[in-house]
Amino acid sequence: MSITGDQSLLKQINRMALVRAIRQQAGLSRADLAKLTGLTRSTVSLLCQDLINEGWLVEHEIQATGALGRRPTPLAIDPLRLALIGADLGVDGLHVVATSLNGEILASRSEAIVGNDAAMVLERLARMLSEEALSLRMQGRGLLGIGVGLPGGVDEAAGTLKFAPNLGWRDVAIREPLGAALARVGLDDVPIHVHNEADVAALGEFEFGEGEVPEPLIFVSLGIGVGAGIVAGARLFVGANGFAGEVGHTILKVDGPLCSCGRHGCAEAFIGLNAISARIAPGLSLAAIRTQLDFGDERALAVVGEAGRALGVLIQNLWTLFNPGRIVLGGPSCALGDAFLSAAFARLARYTEEAGLPGPDLRITRFGPLAVAVGAAALVLHKTIRPV
Amino acid sequence: MSITGDQSLLKQINRMALVRAIRQQAGLSRADLAKLTGLTRSTVSLLCQDLINEGWLVEHEIQATGALGRRPTPLAIDPLRLALIGADLGVDGLHVVATSLNGEILASRSEAIVGNDAAMVLERLARMLSEEALSLRMQGRGLLGIGVGLPGGVDEAAGTLKFAPNLGWRDVAIREPLGAALARVGLDDVPIHVHNEADVAALGEFEFGEGEVPEPLIFVSLGIGVGAGIVAGARLFVGANGFAGEVGHTILKVDGPLCSCGRHGCAEAFIGLNAISARIAPGLSLAAIRTQLDFGDERALAVVGEAGRALGVLIQNLWTLFNPGRIVLGGPSCALGDAFLSAAFARLARYTEEAGLPGPDLRITRFGPLAVAVGAAALVLHKTIRPV
Ligand SMILES: [Zn+2]
Ligand SMILES: [Zn+2]
Repeated sequence: MSITGDQSLLKQINRMALVRAIRQQAGLSRADLAKLTGLTRSTVSLLCQDLINEGWLVEHEIQATGALGRRPTPLAIDPLRLALIGADLGVDGLHVVATSLNGEILASRSEAIVGNDAAMVLERLARMLSEEALSLRMQGRGLLGIGVGLPGGVDEAAGTLKFAPNLGWRDVAIREPLGAALARVGLDDVPIHVHNEADVAALGEFEFGEGEVPEPLIFVSLGIGVGAGIVAGARLFVGANGFAGEVGHTILKVDGPLCSCGRHGCAEAFIGLNAISARIAPGLSLAAIRTQLDFGDERALAVVGEAGRALGVLIQNLWTLFNPGRIVLGGPSCALGDAFLSAAFARLARYTEEAGLPGPDLRITRFGPLAVAVGAAALVLHKTIRPV
Repeated sequence: MSITGDQSLLKQINRMALVRAIRQQAGLSRADLAKLTGLTRSTVSLLCQDLINEGWLVEHEIQATGALGRRPTPLAIDPLRLALIGADLGVDGLHVVATSLNGEILASRSEAIVGNDAAMVLERLARMLSEEALSLRMQGRGLLGIGVGLPGGVDEAAGTLKFAPNLGWRDVAIREPLGAALARVGLDDVPIHVHNEADVAALGEFEFGEGEVPEPLIFVSLGIGVGAGIVAGARLFVGANGFAGEVGHTILKVDGPLCSCGRHGCAEAFIGLNAISARIAPGLSLAAIRTQLDFGDERALAVVGEAGRALGVLIQNLWTLFNPGRIVLGGPSCALGDAFLSAAFARLARYTEEAGLPGPDLRITRFGPLAVAVGAAALVLHKTIRPV
C-alpha cells in the first residue's frame, strides 16, 4: 500500500481510476474526476486527453443554453473505437465474440468441435480469432486484447490448461500456439489472457453488469460439469491453488450416487448433465431431453425437476456460505428451462422462507450460450482497468 | 487507488506498511525497508523513529564484529511496550485476554455468565476489561485498543449486537455501554471494536499465526452454533450483508433432521452441540458427554463419531468451495476430542483421496478456549495495521 517509485505503473493506476469512475457514472466532467480521485485538475486533464486520443473516452456535446460561462464537458466511455475479443473453448464448441468496452456484442461466431485433438482445435480457434481481429481492424477499431475461457484448471501465468476432464486434455499450452498463429497474420501485438470458463463468465456479469453490480457475485455454470466463478472486492476469488468455486464437487448427500470425481453424493452427481440424462435414458442429448420435456414426458419431467431441486439446495448452500449479493446461472443446462430452473427457484424460496431471510438476487445470464465468450472479453477489460 | 491529498491517512498507511514488513520479517534495517516499500530513506528513518518512540518497534543490538563501518541496525516488533485487549462475550462465559503485538498472551481472566440480562453481563464485562486495562497501565504498557467477539450478527459501525440466538439477545448496544463504563475509571481514550466471534477468531489465527499464514484461512467455530470466519486477501470475507460463513446452516442432507433455523438437514443439526447431546441423552452437558466418552460409553462414541463424520463432510465442502490454504477448528466442541475430531479428519482424508488431491492444512486452534478472546485482540491489531 506504500507509494512506489514506479511512475509508469502509477500513471496507469491513475488513468484507469478515471476510466472506472466514468464507467460507474457516465457524464462526469474533468472537475468531477479531480474531486473524486484527489488528482490535480491538470493531471486529470492530461490523462483524459490521452484517454480520448486512445479511444477510451469520448466528450459529449454540451447542449447550448443561455447561461454565461463555459459549462464542464461531460465524458463517457467511447463505445465505438476500442474493442475486446473473447473466446469460449468449450466442450460443446468454439465461440468467439467481439464486444465494445461496455460489453455490447459487436459480432459472434460459433463452430462445433469435431474430435478433441488439441492442436487441431487450437488451430481452428486461432483462425476464428484472426478473422475477428482482422475484421475489427478493417472497421478501424483498436483491439485491447483477447481473452480465452477454458473448461478446466488453468495456469494463468504460464498460459496453459492444466486439466480439462470433459475434453480429456492435460497440460496443454494455449496462449503460446494462439499467439504464434496470430503473429503469422500480423497480429503479434495483441495480449492474450486465459482463465477458467466459470471465472471469466463471472467477470462478464461483473464488468458488463448494468449499474452498480452487487457483490460478492457468483456465476454458476451448469453443464456436464458444474462449476462457479466468484467475484469479491472487484477481483476473482480463486483460493490457495486456484480451484475455489468447485461447487459441483460439494457433497449434497453423504454416500449418495457416484460422481465423476470418485466421491459419492457430489452436486454434479445430481445436477450434472450426464447424471440427468443417465436417469432418463443413458446417452440422451440435451436437445433430446429438451424435446421430451416439451412433449410432457413424465419421466423426463420428474428427473429434471429432482435435479432442479438439488440445484436449489446447492444455491442455498452458496448463499449461506458466501452471502452473495447476486447469483447468476448459466451454461448449457439452462436450456432445460422451467422444468429445471423453476424447481430450483422454488426450493431456494422454501429455504429462505424457513430461515426468515430475503433470498439472494438470483438470475439467469443475459448472455445465454455466449456467457463464457463474453466473459473472456470482460477478462481483457478487467486485467486492463484494474492493474493492481 | 489514486493518491489522495489526505496526508495523515497517507502517513498512517506508510507507517503501517513498515510495521507489516517488520512483522513478516524481523531484523530488517531501515535500508531494507526503503527498498521494500519504495519510500525514501529519510522518510523511513523519520517514521521508524516515531514507531520506536511509540512502542511499536525496537532496535536490536548489533553484535560487535571486527568489520569496519557502521552496520545497519535490525528492527523488530517490540513485544514489551504495547498491548492489546480482547474479550469473548460467549454463551459459555466471559473471557478477557491481554496480548503483546505478537499475540503472546500476557494475562487472561474468565467468568461464567449467570443469567442472561444484557445490562448485567455488560457491566461485568466492563469491570473485567477495566481491571485488565488498569493492570496494563500499572505495568507501563500502552494499550492500542479493546476488541470484543460476540456470538451473533454484529453491526460493526454502530457497535451493536443485532441478534444472538443462543443468548436470546436482539439489538443490544455493546460499544456504547462498555465505553461509558471504561470512561468512568479514566479509560475514555481506548478504541473499542466489536465483531462476530468466528470472524475475530479467524483474524487471531491470521494475525498471530507463525510465519507466512496461508490464505484463504477459515476458522470453524464448533459449539451449540457452528459458524466460520474467513480471511482472504488479508481481510475478512463477510459477504453482502455480513453473514458469509454461516456454515452451520448449509444443507448436508436434504430433508434431514430439523435445525434451529427451521430448515431441515443443516450441518448444525448434525454437528451442533445440542444436536449431539439430544441424540445421547437430552440436556447432557459437554462435560458429561466428555465423561461418557472417557468411560467408553458406546452410544456416546457412536453419536459423537457420526457427528465427526458429518464435520468431515462440511470441511470437504468448505475446501471445495473456498480452496482454503488453512482450516482451523475451534470452539467448545473441540473438547469432545478424538472421538469427534479423528472421525472428521478420517472422513476428509477419504474424500481428498477419492478426489486425488492433497487435503487442506487442517488444524486445531492453538489458543484453545481463548481463541475468540485472542481473536478479539487481533481485531484491534488488524484494524490498526491495515488502515485501508
Ligand atoms: Zn464429485
Ligand atoms: Zn439451520
